[in-house]
Amino acid sequence: MSRTIVKNGIFVTLASKEEPVLNGYMVVENGTIDGLYEGEPSPETVNGNTIIDAQGKWVLPGLVNTHGHTGSALLRGAGEDDLPVQKWLESVMWPAEQTFTPGITRAANALAIGEMIKSGTTTFLDMYHLNMDAAGELIKDSGINGVLCRGMIGLCPEHEQREKLNEATDLYRNWHNEADGRIRVMLSPHAPYTCPPSFMEMIIDRASEHEISLHTHLAENRGEVETHKQQYGKRPAEHLAELGFFDLPALIAHGVHLSEKELDLFAEKKVCVSHNPVSNLKLGSGIADVPGMRKRGISVSLGTDSTASNNSLDLFEEMKMAALIHKGTSEDPTVTSAYDTLKSATAQGARSLGYSRKGRLEKGWDADFIFVDHSGMHTLPDPADRVLSHLVYASKASDVTDVYVSGRALMKNRELQTLDEEQVIANVRAAMEELKNLM
Amino acid sequence: MSRTIVKNGIFVTLASKEEPVLNGYMVVENGTIDGLYEGEPSPETVNGNTIIDAQGKWVLPGLVNTHGHTGSALLRGAGEDDLPVQKWLESVMWPAEQTFTPGITRAANALAIGEMIKSGTTTFLDMYHLNMDAAGELIKDSGINGVLCRGMIGLCPEHEQREKLNEATDLYRNWHNEADGRIRVMLSPHAPYTCPPSFMEMIIDRASEHEISLHTHLAENRGEVETHKQQYGKRPAEHLAELGFFDLPALIAHGVHLSEKELDLFAEKKVCVSHNPVSNLKLGSGIADVPGMRKRGISVSLGTDSTASNNSLDLFEEMKMAALIHKGTSEDPTVTSAYDTLKSATAQGARSLGYSRKGRLEKGWDADFIFVDHSGMHTLPDPADRVLSHLVYASKASDVTDVYVSGRALMKNRELQTLDEEQVIANVRAAMEELKNLM
Ligand SMILES: [Zn+2]
Ligand SMILES: [Zn+2]
Repeated sequence: MSRTIVKNGIFVTLASKEEPVLNGYMVVENGTIDGLYEGEPSPETVNGNTIIDAQGKWVLPGLVNTHGHTGSALLRGAGEDDLPVQKWLESVMWPAEQTFTPGITRAANALAIGEMIKSGTTTFLDMYHLNMDAAGELIKDSGINGVLCRGMIGLCPEHEQREKLNEATDLYRNWHNEADGRIRVMLSPHAPYTCPPSFMEMIIDRASEHEISLHTHLAENRGEVETHKQQYGKRPAEHLAELGFFDLPALIAHGVHLSEKELDLFAEKKVCVSHNPVSNLKLGSGIADVPGMRKRGISVSLGTDSTASNNSLDLFEEMKMAALIHKGTSEDPTVTSAYDTLKSATAQGARSLGYSRKGRLEKGWDADFIFVDHSGMHTLPDPADRVLSHLVYASKASDVTDVYVSGRALMKNRELQTLDEEQVIANVRAAMEELKNLM
Repeated sequence: MSRTIVKNGIFVTLASKEEPVLNGYMVVENGTIDGLYEGEPSPETVNGNTIIDAQGKWVLPGLVNTHGHTGSALLRGAGEDDLPVQKWLESVMWPAEQTFTPGITRAANALAIGEMIKSGTTTFLDMYHLNMDAAGELIKDSGINGVLCRGMIGLCPEHEQREKLNEATDLYRNWHNEADGRIRVMLSPHAPYTCPPSFMEMIIDRASEHEISLHTHLAENRGEVETHKQQYGKRPAEHLAELGFFDLPALIAHGVHLSEKELDLFAEKKVCVSHNPVSNLKLGSGIADVPGMRKRGISVSLGTDSTASNNSLDLFEEMKMAALIHKGTSEDPTVTSAYDTLKSATAQGARSLGYSRKGRLEKGWDADFIFVDHSGMHTLPDPADRVLSHLVYASKASDVTDVYVSGRALMKNRELQTLDEEQVIANVRAAMEELKNLM
């Protein structure tokens, strides 16, 4: 039985805040981490096994992006950049999406997955309403881990709502736990402001029936919360709680405008939050109270949202932003740390998505890991006690050299191994031509 | 007389918001832009000249970093990351700096300059109190543009204050307008909280006498403003105004905690602001009112501050942060734009530093320009109308391939031309050994 030995590595295990790093080697067997050890492997450990040399690299768990929409990736930078979220959805996103063919969304899926692998992401959540089976196929073939969500907007007659829900349930039946468990599926109403309570209840019932986890946008901007209060006399998160949404495992994206009471409720109900600071800033939505969430023990992970509102799928950028922004707004640099931020981008993210053995470098966990080169001038000097700081505040997506999922290489020395980068780019160019003719 | 033709380029001239881009070629003669033209150069234009092919690249003015301290570059990630500015200065920065030898600061200068060139910066301001002549030599040799400031802390007896001021004046005499005007010198009290009014007056007199521009840290954090009010009964910017500081050309760094009245004063006195959003967030200083500054017509440029509080010297990151942060805090995405941000990072920066012909791609201006590759997956799709958006929200430092200052190549195809990168890195490692033994 062949094993893989990753040697000469500085392993950022994040096992604890006090001992986050181990110098030594890691043994991988059948896609699983069989152990991490200090020092050099013995000749007999090495003998007959595949050796990967991590000299000059930091090895860390693959990054986890808990909120995004790959199907709209071709809209990066489209339309005006300086629009509020409602106007941007109505004037840029939704009209463009009307014209999307399967070829267009598939080109977008592949571009986004390629960008994510190149920046060290090994797991992502994808909420979209079009052609999710194609996204599933791409996840399967590319070797990345992905959570599929058929995003549902309920501003339509009930029979259409039912069709969407059935489509989402079929997605679950066809894809959940496929590709050796790399693919998972969640049920995903788009948001309380696009899904009336009756539809929310329908979705919650379905999720409950099949034990499917839930994902939704929630409390992204102030206006949406105000409108909800006017319409229903309560805040959207309170409302979802009443409907039973949080009695199931739930991950909500954004949570920018939550009351203290709603945060307490999240803690009580173990609601997970996908913090998307770049997108929240870009759309002028505001800044989530992440220190308040962490103080309550709420699991906070990181998401990029789509390239249409970020405009990058780069968790290194997202980590730096997430670590910085709350220090600035609170005028207190102690409210976030590099360690907490790295945990958010790895283990917390994986757990939020329902992966039980991802996000840590530890015996028995999936061998999802990335190499980060630290020889660039922008990460020097690089003594051992600065590793966590550098990973959050100085390293760049472009420093990621190698990406492995379950022991399989998705990128080596910055070359994609499972996607044909040239072909992906050619398909993007072709899709843009098609889009130009459609719009 | 040999000319250089940069052809096949998409030139981001930033000439106006409506027509920011020109497709065509640029003629450079004796380090100066001789013209930009649409389309292809004729055979006789090309004949006998040096041709640079900018195919697949965006060509834009070199970026300008208006506040930093290269001498402390080796402190990137040193000490705890999560400290407020005063504590961080007192427990990390100042004790470390006590031990710096000329070898250590020179290694740091070179590392910082290398990192800046690699990320597309062609002009920077350097405020430091140690070995500024060595920084001048490096700027001269490396071909970058630099403003030298001998930072002065006045918490010392008057004869020491005078020594520092004389050193700063010597720096001006020896370096101002040297290296074909690439080097400039400003007089730089560290901050009102480290320079008592009597010393400030001494500095202002000296600046006035020699017509030297002024640069200082100002209103970086709330505590420093409160203490100043308690001590002098007025806010620090008001106080500097009374002392006559703003009757000379002045650039202040940070300006996070300014009153409306002080902002009005800045507009009236044409005080330039170096906005350092990443550093201000990292140290928990807060967020400057940049929309309020722009509304008043105050010139806002961008600075990274040092690697000890950023921890990158990357103006692409700084641009994205500067474009995003104010949208988020005001919950209004229209308060900043990609165009304004790019102007801040180029022409506004150059003018703030006293360079009159830098920061634009235009006939008669210095040929300081950079190439940005846009073939990476993270900047696709890349139609022409998304150039500005991509440069601010999607492009990365690692996309910069070529850097020219006054027509001279400082980097080609990501290889430094005027600095020996391996030697710079070897010197950093040697300096770190020396530092370890000293501290
Ligand atoms: Zn979203
Ligand atoms: Zn500074």
